Amino acid sequence: MTAKTRIWTPIDFDADGKQVDFMRVPHSTDLSAYGWIPIPMACIRNGDGPTALLVAGNHGDEYEGQVALTNLIRGLNSQDIRGRVIVLPALNFPAVAAGRRVSPLDDANLNRSFPGRAHGTPTEMIAHYVSDVLLPMSDIVVDLHSGGRSLDYIASALVRPGRDVNEHRSLVRLMQIFGAPISFVSDGTGGGGSTTLAAAAQDRGVLAITTELGGGATLSKRGLSLAESGIRRLLDEMGILQGAHVEPPCATRFMTVRGHDAFVYARNVGVFEPAAEVGEVVNEGQLAGWIHFPDVPMHEPERLDFRSSGLVACRRVPSLTQRGDCLFKIMTDLAIV
Amino acid sequence: MTAKTRIWTPIDFDADGKQVDFMRVPHSTDLSAYGWIPIPMACIRNGDGPTALLVAGNHGDEYEGQVALTNLIRGLNSQDIRGRVIVLPALNFPAVAAGRRVSPLDDANLNRSFPGRAHGTPTEMIAHYVSDVLLPMSDIVVDLHSGGRSLDYIASALVRPGRDVNEHRSLVRLMQIFGAPISFVSDGTGGGGSTTLAAAAQDRGVLAITTELGGGATLSKRGLSLAESGIRRLLDEMGILQGAHVEPPCATRFMTVRGHDAFVYARNVGVFEPAAEVGEVVNEGQLAGWIHFPDVPMHEPERLDFRSSGLVACRRVPSLTQRGDCLFKIMTDLAIV
Amino acid sequence: MTAKTRIWTPIDFDADGKQVDFMRVPHSTDLSAYGWIPIPMACIRNGDGPTALLVAGNHGDEYEGQVALTNLIRGLNSQDIRGRVIVLPALNFPAVAAGRRVSPLDDANLNRSFPGRAHGTPTEMIAHYVSDVLLPMSDIVVDLHSGGRSLDYIASALVRPGRDVNEHRSLVRLMQIFGAPISFVSDGTGGGGSTTLAAAAQDRGVLAITTELGGGATLSKRGLSLAESGIRRLLDEMGILQGAHVEPPCATRFMTVRGHDAFVYARNVGVFEPAAEVGEVVNEGQLAGWIHFPDVPMHEPERLDFRSSGLVACRRVPSLTQRGDCLFKIMTDLAIV
Amino acid sequence: MTAKTRIWTPIDFDADGKQVDFMRVPHSTDLSAYGWIPIPMACIRNGDGPTALLVAGNHGDEYEGQVALTNLIRGLNSQDIRGRVIVLPALNFPAVAAGRRVSPLDDANLNRSFPGRAHGTPTEMIAHYVSDVLLPMSDIVVDLHSGGRSLDYIASALVRPGRDVNEHRSLVRLMQIFGAPISFVSDGTGGGGSTTLAAAAQDRGVLAITTELGGGATLSKRGLSLAESGIRRLLDEMGILQGAHVEPPCATRFMTVRGHDAFVYARNVGVFEPAAEVGEVVNEGQLAGWIHFPDVPMHEPERLDFRSSGLVACRRVPSLTQRGDCLFKIMTDLAIV
Amino acid sequence: MTAKTRIWTPIDFDADGKQVDFMRVPHSTDLSAYGWIPIPMACIRNGDGPTALLVAGNHGDEYEGQVALTNLIRGLNSQDIRGRVIVLPALNFPAVAAGRRVSPLDDANLNRSFPGRAHGTPTEMIAHYVSDVLLPMSDIVVDLHSGGRSLDYIASALVRPGRDVNEHRSLVRLMQIFGAPISFVSDGTGGGGSTTLAAAAQDRGVLAITTELGGGATLSKRGLSLAESGIRRLLDEMGILQGAHVEPPCATRFMTVRGHDAFVYARNVGVFEPAAEVGEVVNEGQLAGWIHFPDVPMHEPERLDFRSSGLVACRRVPSLTQRGDCLFKIMTDLAIV
Amino acid sequence: MTAKTRIWTPIDFDADGKQVDFMRVPHSTDLSAYGWIPIPMACIRNGDGPTALLVAGNHGDEYEGQVALTNLIRGLNSQDIRGRVIVLPALNFPAVAAGRRVSPLDDANLNRSFPGRAHGTPTEMIAHYVSDVLLPMSDIVVDLHSGGRSLDYIASALVRPGRDVNEHRSLVRLMQIFGAPISFVSDGTGGGGSTTLAAAAQDRGVLAITTELGGGATLSKRGLSLAESGIRRLLDEMGILQGAHVEPPCATRFMTVRGHDAFVYARNVGVFEPAAEVGEVVNEGQLAGWIHFPDVPMHEPERLDFRSSGLVACRRVPSLTQRGDCLFKIMTDLAIV
Repeated sequence: MTAKTRIWTPIDFDADGKQVDFMRVPHSTDLSAYGWIPIPMACIRNGDGPTALLVAGNHGDEYEGQVALTNLIRGLNSQDIRGRVIVLPALNFPAVAAGRRVSPLDDANLNRSFPGRAHGTPTEMIAHYVSDVLLPMSDIVVDLHSGGRSLDYIASALVRPGRDVNEHRSLVRLMQIFGAPISFVSDGTGGGGSTTLAAAAQDRGVLAITTELGGGATLSKRGLSLAESGIRRLLDEMGILQGAHVEPPCATRFMTVRGHDAFVYARNVGVFEPAAEVGEVVNEGQLAGWIHFPDVPMHEPERLDFRSSGLVACRRVPSLTQRGDCLFKIMTDLAIV
Repeated sequence: MTAKTRIWTPIDFDADGKQVDFMRVPHSTDLSAYGWIPIPMACIRNGDGPTALLVAGNHGDEYEGQVALTNLIRGLNSQDIRGRVIVLPALNFPAVAAGRRVSPLDDANLNRSFPGRAHGTPTEMIAHYVSDVLLPMSDIVVDLHSGGRSLDYIASALVRPGRDVNEHRSLVRLMQIFGAPISFVSDGTGGGGSTTLAAAAQDRGVLAITTELGGGATLSKRGLSLAESGIRRLLDEMGILQGAHVEPPCATRFMTVRGHDAFVYARNVGVFEPAAEVGEVVNEGQLAGWIHFPDVPMHEPERLDFRSSGLVACRRVPSLTQRGDCLFKIMTDLAIV
Repeated sequence: MTAKTRIWTPIDFDADGKQVDFMRVPHSTDLSAYGWIPIPMACIRNGDGPTALLVAGNHGDEYEGQVALTNLIRGLNSQDIRGRVIVLPALNFPAVAAGRRVSPLDDANLNRSFPGRAHGTPTEMIAHYVSDVLLPMSDIVVDLHSGGRSLDYIASALVRPGRDVNEHRSLVRLMQIFGAPISFVSDGTGGGGSTTLAAAAQDRGVLAITTELGGGATLSKRGLSLAESGIRRLLDEMGILQGAHVEPPCATRFMTVRGHDAFVYARNVGVFEPAAEVGEVVNEGQLAGWIHFPDVPMHEPERLDFRSSGLVACRRVPSLTQRGDCLFKIMTDLAIV
Repeated sequence: MTAKTRIWTPIDFDADGKQVDFMRVPHSTDLSAYGWIPIPMACIRNGDGPTALLVAGNHGDEYEGQVALTNLIRGLNSQDIRGRVIVLPALNFPAVAAGRRVSPLDDANLNRSFPGRAHGTPTEMIAHYVSDVLLPMSDIVVDLHSGGRSLDYIASALVRPGRDVNEHRSLVRLMQIFGAPISFVSDGTGGGGSTTLAAAAQDRGVLAITTELGGGATLSKRGLSLAESGIRRLLDEMGILQGAHVEPPCATRFMTVRGHDAFVYARNVGVFEPAAEVGEVVNEGQLAGWIHFPDVPMHEPERLDFRSSGLVACRRVPSLTQRGDCLFKIMTDLAIV
Repeated sequence: MTAKTRIWTPIDFDADGKQVDFMRVPHSTDLSAYGWIPIPMACIRNGDGPTALLVAGNHGDEYEGQVALTNLIRGLNSQDIRGRVIVLPALNFPAVAAGRRVSPLDDANLNRSFPGRAHGTPTEMIAHYVSDVLLPMSDIVVDLHSGGRSLDYIASALVRPGRDVNEHRSLVRLMQIFGAPISFVSDGTGGGGSTTLAAAAQDRGVLAITTELGGGATLSKRGLSLAESGIRRLLDEMGILQGAHVEPPCATRFMTVRGHDAFVYARNVGVFEPAAEVGEVVNEGQLAGWIHFPDVPMHEPERLDFRSSGLVACRRVPSLTQRGDCLFKIMTDLAIV
Repeated sequence: MTAKTRIWTPIDFDADGKQVDFMRVPHSTDLSAYGWIPIPMACIRNGDGPTALLVAGNHGDEYEGQVALTNLIRGLNSQDIRGRVIVLPALNFPAVAAGRRVSPLDDANLNRSFPGRAHGTPTEMIAHYVSDVLLPMSDIVVDLHSGGRSLDYIASALVRPGRDVNEHRSLVRLMQIFGAPISFVSDGTGGGGSTTLAAAAQDRGVLAITTELGGGATLSKRGLSLAESGIRRLLDEMGILQGAHVEPPCATRFMTVRGHDAFVYARNVGVFEPAAEVGEVVNEGQLAGWIHFPDVPMHEPERLDFRSSGLVACRRVPSLTQRGDCLFKIMTDLAIV
């Protein structure tokens, strides 16, 4: 982590005004010995004040955040703010350009690659630049995710548990301000754990909020609308947005995910027929779905049941399913946030 | 077309009872010099009578038909019927196994490959077997499609215009019996034209009905339910299903697609934000959506308008879009069927 | 050849004015069920008169023609002409987009695919559309080639022998007008033979001239300049260009290629060191180059000699060489054109 | 079939002496616009007399024939013979260079591609050249096969049934002369049928004998020895080999393969454990082997039985097995040849 | 090494009885954001006692061990034993499913990846789980290898030299009990060295024995039989197997491999003809085989000689050979074990 | 860095005479369990004296050095020298064999991989062997580069700034002796920085000089000639070459590259038309070239200007260009070396 980044940009983070260029990630290939990967980045600044780092395209097949931040870059001017907004609408650009969760250059999942390596693969270099250059400049980071090609997700926000009471209260307040229907607190067990952007932010003392806004590699208009209003509310809360009219948030419901029994996994290769939808309330032992076998049609389909009760947070989108694929994740209400 | 098929099966199409085995498509590879591709097939027969050929998995990423026919093979017994039902729940099996529209063996779209070739690629051999062996045995063929990975489709049925008044009336009646909310008459212009299974059936004097039941490479429970009830109604109508309770069809709405202006196509590479949903009524000149450019966020998004009025029949699912991709197709009511 | 093309375009070839859109080649894929390949095409028309068909990007890695025709589309207006100019700056667009000689969709070489097939692969469909739709409208076709990634070529023009004296004279005159330093007459032996665009044109009674303007997958400014002036001269000669100042052609030298001995081929895998340059005069038996073996450095390099005398028309660019690769082609003067 | 081959060679088939060069198959690629595929070929001639065409590498992963013919080219001189021997030790050279059954250029199986196409893919062009140029010069063709990567084969020879009594007797005699332990008569049902080199030879009135000499993509010394002695005996029998000492053949056993029940096929994906070896005598109903499922170890392995009695002609080599793979083929004695 | 594994399993290693489930290796892909790789694992326990860890599928193309352990999981019940047996019949499951030595997910050789990384690639995560979770629970580990696709191996067992006299005696005794015809002592020089499962076991004080049971990606019935009986003997020796009849081992011969001269390597690309078989005794300077060149048949084949005397331990299976491929390995008797 | 290399060679670096064999890089694959990658290497020694390490093929698509060093190995004998010359004409051999900048085995750029890892990927293992075994034996290393497939380069030499005055003078003198038209001093900013062979050499106190000799994946005869004479001069300067006639160097011009403004980068995907050539003097603000858009021909081409004045050191070769590709690099004279 002590090595210096090889990424560079003509953007001057200390200059006032709106600059839009690229994080330039050196990538020496057969067809471009001295070339770089162009990661779009905007810096909008108006004097001293807090810095918000806004990120989408951490996974390349999640679109609400990409569109919300692309619109924000065009729509937001330096005179509208106080302080600084750094916007990255397509952070893992090779994955975004390919429409994939992972980068086609190194098959790496950026949100499992933090804090990254200065001399690593392209994905590792991006993670390192965010960790080593951008996070130290920031007071808050918003990382806009959706379910991607494989999952359909209920609109929600997510934070890690604060390391002390004050940090925790600040994080919970961010979710209230963002105003998703559902808000989670999770330490990332079962997901990225300590290798996410949010974990890297917390390690550096930066408040981090993550979202899930839709899924299926398609665009949810409701998710897009939530992303756009939620970001405005967060910028207003930070004192960055100046004098703008910002609609108030809806009430959010605080929930959590409890252990491996919250998940339903496929145990066979086949065609998944779900028996519940995202947002539905289900009970332990209730039918979750079937795996069908068109290749050997006389085989009985395999029945799958829910292993705990709660609200369906996400569901697998593609019907064709392998052993080990996650089919459902269940949430339960959180008594005390 | 005069060459004899190289495909074989142990199934005896003239024997009574239920037989389930495979169309065995010879495929000589590095790892299997004498091997065959196993295309699941069932023949259920009870004495003389009409023959219905039921097909799904013509495209490998369309699932409602695959599940409906897999269930039908297990559930239907020869004593339930009179005549014969031949069921192919995964016709282009290499594409089904890969979860793809086209076959990974020859990159071919089966529904653009009819009437096929006896000594061609695997996809061409399958088309030839259906055309040359199965269709001549059949009185009716039902080809169960959905939108696949790239399209979300309104539930509908589709026939080609009859070559004479009687054939036309028979085809229209099939759609009424099937009972989809929407029914089309189309000669396949803009789609597969004369290279589809339905066209091959018509050339051989077999009544053919095609369906669209959902899309996005996921499973629609409503589409599955329609497939299952519609097939029972068709088998009942043909006199094949014996003494079963069959629910009556809902009324269908007859519509058509008029020329290239019924379509909205992307003119740029970017992220598609739709402004209308499947089933919505739209007007010529109305906003259809935007193409956003997260790679160069200061570029204004490109606005796309509908070029004709009507009902949205299908919409593109994946947000990432290339020039030439179909974003919407519009239908209008048919005055006279 | 009797099947009707599935390619369509909104361009009205009978309308006056400048229209720029696409040949739309239907291509149904996993990610785009109803999509088309966008082949850029312009039609510029001003009343009745002759039609010139101008083509580049037949091979995707040849650039002088692509740039010349792209500039022409922007620069030429209908009032500048009489008759019609149809311009295709990137004919095998999938190959152009990939920077490859052959199409990545079907690995096909378009200039070995004429007259094509209406229901074939994308490359075959393009060849068929040109043969069946565009050539019948045309009086002349200019097909702008260069050496591509593997060859560096002397600037030259090329026609097939006329089928009668008048046609031959017309073709020779086209080369004089075009004004390349070198002009060939060749029936395509050793190259594409009867499967080229020029051969398809001749079969349909359309005068066809082909060029070679550089090579190495890079852009020659001299080749670009020749393409631009040569096309203006040809349009002027056809009576299409109206009242424009057109610079006169330089004198051309008529040459030919005689049999297999005009070629030097590699007989081993290794690193090619050439001993002559494009445009140099060489003699039979003279050293042509060496094949070196860095993998087994004690092996003596293999010496290659020219097998006939003449002018070096082209030379291999990539040093890494396989058995059977063409290293040089030699031309000799033509006594009587 | 009336189009002329595009393949050429500097070899003069009418010249006496030994010439070794290549069938030169034009193949225009990104890296070699004017290149050709180098298929090694020798022509050894000494005056008038019969012509034997000797072929190996029809499938690229079968080695006994490749080595036998490579040795023959070096060892045989024109003064040793009367007439002509044309030797192709690596006929589908792209497949040979890749160590694969099928060509990596077009994924085609050469021995399913006869009689080929003059303007087809590389594999089709090779088949066409053999059919159209080499077979018309030949009196006999010997096509040396083995089991390849997927099969281990008993040493055997194979002919198609003669079209009349004289032809049949001539073919049976060829097998007696070749002297494999086993000799078959088969019309290729279940294999290549009318698309093999042997079928193309028969259509052109050329006597054709095929062999199987080992398998598993490895070299059998016994198979190699049989190939070398058998070819010498055949050349001696044809009157081509002059005054050489040729060892007499061993007695051969005439057998045949009867219908689909001669084969055992896998019905599941798993690990194949054979219960019989090549050359073993088995009975209908006897255990043939097991398919094991290490991915789900509590699943009982699937037992497979022989479906007819006889001698094991070949057995699958790779343990990992897909549904439809051939595991065993059984032969029975032929009462009357 | 201090990071905690991300792999989990529902198996409770402290519970009595037989549990069969999976090592669940998190693997987040385009098609499965929250999915895991299912590595089959069984834990069979009956009270306190020693623990044996039994592994196959470390390389995916080695089958005797996979079948032996799959059978063992079904056949062994907790009441048959005292203590605990942990069985992994397909340890590098992605490689097993692909029938490959290395994993298709990261191209990594598991037996060159120990002790692994908690946050590494899938292969590194598997190695880390074995090193960090399973080995600390174990008293003995048996790692069942064969030659794989590229090598045919004499049936043998292998241990690393003990780090002290007692450990060495224990390891030698394990080989005597296992009862392979040949037993080696080797520190892995020339192979995996310190990166193997056996080395990781030794570092953690666990006795480790490795086997070679066949090769060529096919199944040896003798190798399978040896695996099954040898494991029973080892479990009996450990006091784990209770009251079972176990056949006594055959005598083993102790041998070793001495330096680089024990190996014969290819020095050219060509077709390998071996002159000796596995198990044969050869002398230094004796002919080992030939490399043939069917692509240039007039080139003399290259002769290869043995560089030391001894017994042939393994031989290359595929005929097609590259420079640097191992063709033979020679063993010599060990005077003192 | 403390782990020991797994690479071995039969070459004895302490023996007098000429030895030519391979760095043998263990690489265990599906097809070669015990194989190694054969990296050609020569050691020529005559008694005590300095050691020169001569390297080419660090990038596989750069040819002048490969040919120069291959010739040197054949031409240089031990009696011609005093001390030792170690020659590696194809250092990243997998990349050389593929004609690529990066290795096809791990997609790694060797000159971004120093000092490497003993247990890493093949490219990392090669870097480690050079750093850990060869550099400690060497007094000077010459690393012969060219522009590769993507760049055409002016003939030049390059050193890193010396860490003290003496080292700096020694390095500058090496460039004077080598005698390229242009000589640079650069710390690798914007290129490989601390991960190059030259940086690894400097860390170990070895004088390192790098060259650029041509480009475009083709061979420059002038670059080859410079490589051959320059190496002889360096060996003479080191006192290694004995009594040979060595031509004196031409005068070199000392230059440098100043910051990011020395580069022109593409900001769009399109066809690059350069407006300046390698070796030309240009001024800030002068036209550098155009990016054309044949896919949308009505789009104005994008004009690119030089951002600083100086001499064109290199230019992009392939016309097809992506955003971020380097099109030009500009040098300026160095007042004081």
